[in-house]
Amino acid sequence: MIHTIYKEGECHMQKFGFIGLGIMGSAIAKNLVNAGFEVTVWNRSPEKNKGLADLGAKMAETPQAVIESCPVTFTMLADPAAAREVCFGKYGVLDGISPGKGYVDMSTVDPETSQMIGGAVTAMGGRFLEAPVSGSRKPAEEGTLVILAAGDRTLFDEAMPGLERMGKKILYLGETGNGAKMKLVVNMVMGGMMAIFCEGLALGGKVGLDTADILDVIDSGAMANPMFKLKGGLIREGNFATAFPLKHMQKDLRLAVGLGDQASQPLFSAAAANEAFKNAKGLGFGDEDFSAIFKAIAKPD
Amino acid sequence: MIHTIYKEGECHMQKFGFIGLGIMGSAIAKNLVNAGFEVTVWNRSPEKNKGLADLGAKMAETPQAVIESCPVTFTMLADPAAAREVCFGKYGVLDGISPGKGYVDMSTVDPETSQMIGGAVTAMGGRFLEAPVSGSRKPAEEGTLVILAAGDRTLFDEAMPGLERMGKKILYLGETGNGAKMKLVVNMVMGGMMAIFCEGLALGGKVGLDTADILDVIDSGAMANPMFKLKGGLIREGNFATAFPLKHMQKDLRLAVGLGDQASQPLFSAAAANEAFKNAKGLGFGDEDFSAIFKAIAKPD
Amino acid sequence: MIHTIYKEGECHMQKFGFIGLGIMGSAIAKNLVNAGFEVTVWNRSPEKNKGLADLGAKMAETPQAVIESCPVTFTMLADPAAAREVCFGKYGVLDGISPGKGYVDMSTVDPETSQMIGGAVTAMGGRFLEAPVSGSRKPAEEGTLVILAAGDRTLFDEAMPGLERMGKKILYLGETGNGAKMKLVVNMVMGGMMAIFCEGLALGGKVGLDTADILDVIDSGAMANPMFKLKGGLIREGNFATAFPLKHMQKDLRLAVGLGDQASQPLFSAAAANEAFKNAKGLGFGDEDFSAIFKAIAKPD
Amino acid sequence: MIHTIYKEGECHMQKFGFIGLGIMGSAIAKNLVNAGFEVTVWNRSPEKNKGLADLGAKMAETPQAVIESCPVTFTMLADPAAAREVCFGKYGVLDGISPGKGYVDMSTVDPETSQMIGGAVTAMGGRFLEAPVSGSRKPAEEGTLVILAAGDRTLFDEAMPGLERMGKKILYLGETGNGAKMKLVVNMVMGGMMAIFCEGLALGGKVGLDTADILDVIDSGAMANPMFKLKGGLIREGNFATAFPLKHMQKDLRLAVGLGDQASQPLFSAAAANEAFKNAKGLGFGDEDFSAIFKAIAKPD
Repeated sequence: MIHTIYKEGECHMQKFGFIGLGIMGSAIAKNLVNAGFEVTVWNRSPEKNKGLADLGAKMAETPQAVIESCPVTFTMLADPAAAREVCFGKYGVLDGISPGKGYVDMSTVDPETSQMIGGAVTAMGGRFLEAPVSGSRKPAEEGTLVILAAGDRTLFDEAMPGLERMGKKILYLGETGNGAKMKLVVNMVMGGMMAIFCEGLALGGKVGLDTADILDVIDSGAMANPMFKLKGGLIREGNFATAFPLKHMQKDLRLAVGLGDQASQPLFSAAAANEAFKNAKGLGFGDEDFSAIFKAIAKPD
Repeated sequence: MIHTIYKEGECHMQKFGFIGLGIMGSAIAKNLVNAGFEVTVWNRSPEKNKGLADLGAKMAETPQAVIESCPVTFTMLADPAAAREVCFGKYGVLDGISPGKGYVDMSTVDPETSQMIGGAVTAMGGRFLEAPVSGSRKPAEEGTLVILAAGDRTLFDEAMPGLERMGKKILYLGETGNGAKMKLVVNMVMGGMMAIFCEGLALGGKVGLDTADILDVIDSGAMANPMFKLKGGLIREGNFATAFPLKHMQKDLRLAVGLGDQASQPLFSAAAANEAFKNAKGLGFGDEDFSAIFKAIAKPD
Repeated sequence: MIHTIYKEGECHMQKFGFIGLGIMGSAIAKNLVNAGFEVTVWNRSPEKNKGLADLGAKMAETPQAVIESCPVTFTMLADPAAAREVCFGKYGVLDGISPGKGYVDMSTVDPETSQMIGGAVTAMGGRFLEAPVSGSRKPAEEGTLVILAAGDRTLFDEAMPGLERMGKKILYLGETGNGAKMKLVVNMVMGGMMAIFCEGLALGGKVGLDTADILDVIDSGAMANPMFKLKGGLIREGNFATAFPLKHMQKDLRLAVGLGDQASQPLFSAAAANEAFKNAKGLGFGDEDFSAIFKAIAKPD
Repeated sequence: MIHTIYKEGECHMQKFGFIGLGIMGSAIAKNLVNAGFEVTVWNRSPEKNKGLADLGAKMAETPQAVIESCPVTFTMLADPAAAREVCFGKYGVLDGISPGKGYVDMSTVDPETSQMIGGAVTAMGGRFLEAPVSGSRKPAEEGTLVILAAGDRTLFDEAMPGLERMGKKILYLGETGNGAKMKLVVNMVMGGMMAIFCEGLALGGKVGLDTADILDVIDSGAMANPMFKLKGGLIREGNFATAFPLKHMQKDLRLAVGLGDQASQPLFSAAAANEAFKNAKGLGFGDEDFSAIFKAIAKPD
């Protein structure tokens, strides 16, 4: 069931906290401020607060202070370790949680980390929603992310006026952990698509076909998709500037294959893609874009 | 290099032969007749000629007679065996070929068969163009196929007024064999995409996600494509009515992996997908739609 | 470097503790008692102590008591969870450790668990040696195990008179964790061999070859090995009585693939074998012998 | 069913032809001459006949002449193309075949080639036996090959006195084609074993284990086999001198996977091994020993 909600709240009156002002976080927080919400922010490196302060955001000294001053706080951090640190660390989120407080973690983490953080917040009387997103910098800036929310339903509804400023598609997926699982499933499909796509380009090149022709044919048929169109063109130019790091894709494939393990679901294609990305990582392409798997597939020498 | 040509010939004056009036062939031939060309047709089962005769097509007694009466003849047959039979058989294509005659084979065959037929036509002084298509019944009827032409360039130009009635995208790919290779590369990518897509749906189902949600998230991101949208919905309904038979997809994957063999291009993902389709075929799903691989992946018991 | 040591100690004088009297542990402990060592034992279920007491072993009330009464204690437990419980639990190993005490853990655990236990023992001033074994019940009874020891070298030397009663081949592999890694590498090769072997038997059967002939040919050439000979015969009879549970093999493959992940070593064959065992587990063969993968490979319906 | 026959014929009286005096063929032919048979030989390069003539063999001018002068002729040629040429070429085998003549082809060919040659010989009234061998130069010299015979049973019995001088194990596998199929199945298992073995060595090396230790542990357990022992030692020394060329192993894997295709038997492990050998071939190791796959697996850069 898809729960896309378009109710327009009285946004100007709501107060939100926002922790984590990296590329994604600062773009999202700006959208909240610009929408008229009263936003209190915190970031590990304080200089990143500046831009938001100029727009009218309040600055807090600690994650704890953000939580204490807002009924609902969003967080967007780089990885599970950062998400845990901000939650469990000194003057951290848990130090500020009191009954009824809402904590919305938008970081991409594994289901276990999400459940651990959610469990701790809930144990302190707070409410928890995981809300990882699909989409990178540009959709974040434009407020067109896909948001994969799961956890406390009342908090989902309460956070909705904010979420609506961030995403074009907002799903409520049920119990905590489902957001992280959905992210893994979707990224697994993405990784597998990239692997077979690059094999096709490599094979075509080896047998004398023009890469532009291959891209044109694919883009003219039922397989046509924005990712192949964008990445195909960049691959053809030898441009592997990082949008989504290859090592992160490999990590997601590893976690997805592990999820299949727990569920006794064999995943032969995902496992082959995982090894192919691992191979590319071993060749030193881990920090390049995940499309750099092409280099590992096409040029074995 | 992409050679999409939009020159509009004086179509009403040109004469075309057309051999093979199956689902695809009759749809294409109708478009030629309706466009005002003088079309002479032949089909193994003569009753299929009726519909076209009613529209104004001439009927010939043999493939030889078609070739003799038209400067350029198109063929659309079911498989390599039929393509060979019509070419090399008694009163066949070769019996009608004389210097300058043009023969355009639109059947999907392997590169070797295409080169064999092309070589024979050329040896008799004729001109040869292979032109397999991407797209099935509906695009054939609507004249929106993708046409993968390769071979004699003068014939390509001469056939263009006809090809323009069949396809929305017409590529000239160079020497004979390249059309067949392009078809294999593109179908290999399609097969691999279907395999990882079904693994994602299967995994999601096993870990408690709603299939409709997964489809919705994928359709909202950079991976969104018509195939996933159409097939995903049908898979969800358990509808595997055959559009493209699973056994044909497996055959294409086998041929593509074999092409990689000749080119020393390792194809781990394509090979895994090939085995997955082989597994599905062994389970009895060979005549169902190629999306029936989902049943083999999701229900190991 | 291989460190096979054959020095014969004055065995009758040494005192050993032994914790864990399951199938493997009781067989090994008996060999120690029969060799004339003074052995003190503990097992969670006390009734298992009987047999050893009859042979002359002393019984202790807790793991702590075993450790306190012996300079060197061996442990053989079923899995990482049991190994952790006995070490960290109340009246457990750590409660008995004092400076100089030797603790030799022969349980099969992952490298992380081994390092965690070893670190705790060392932190209390004790000495730690991991010593997982290759071989099952029969080699345990006959004292012909292969012992993969790693950790404290002085403890390795001191434990040698006991180890010599257990194994025909005793390797010292360096720092703690190497024993567990070796076990994973070796079991990964074993799992991959079984997977390709069963594919060969399945393929041969499908194309009309006699399984006994295939086994005979393999057993006559350079690939001949006791595992194929034994398991091949049993597979032919449809006998999958559990010697090494399929689910344990799948777990080892998963851990080995994960080790390759940490080391950026792509493992396409191991990953494919892992999925094949996962598939067999999903089909309900997890508690049968790992050779039951044959059923999943040969009978897709 | 295994048909190992040990009846001792009156060997000194029998006459055999032998075509093809390469490394394998000359070693086998020598054994026939030394056993007292009257042997007539032919080789494309006549200088290779010398050594055998010195031992007492008769030399013929053409394959046809060999066949005409002997009731039973053995052939050992390098590949399917050579086997076809000698059979179908001018003054070839077929030119000499008359009713009752026996033709035993020991070359390693695909099932289709074997059936084509066998069909032609039979059509001319001759009798045909395929008899590919397992084992290389040394077993050929020592008369300890494994012979995989299939086809005409009366010819098998009549050739037995000769076969017994060549092989330690002689199997009769039924109808023509079964010998070639058995060879593919057995080599497929061998290729898969080598792939997982090299993954184990590569992984072990990456995580700090000593290769000699890994080899020692494997050689001490149920997986111990002459191939791992021999090749493992050579891999450790970086010695990839060709005993069985990597490209031939890859070809056999390709044919075996293709056989699985015909039989609808999925072969995920064999397919992964095939791609791994293909990768090694693409890296330029095709003419080295098949154990050179190790270099492709362990050193991706």
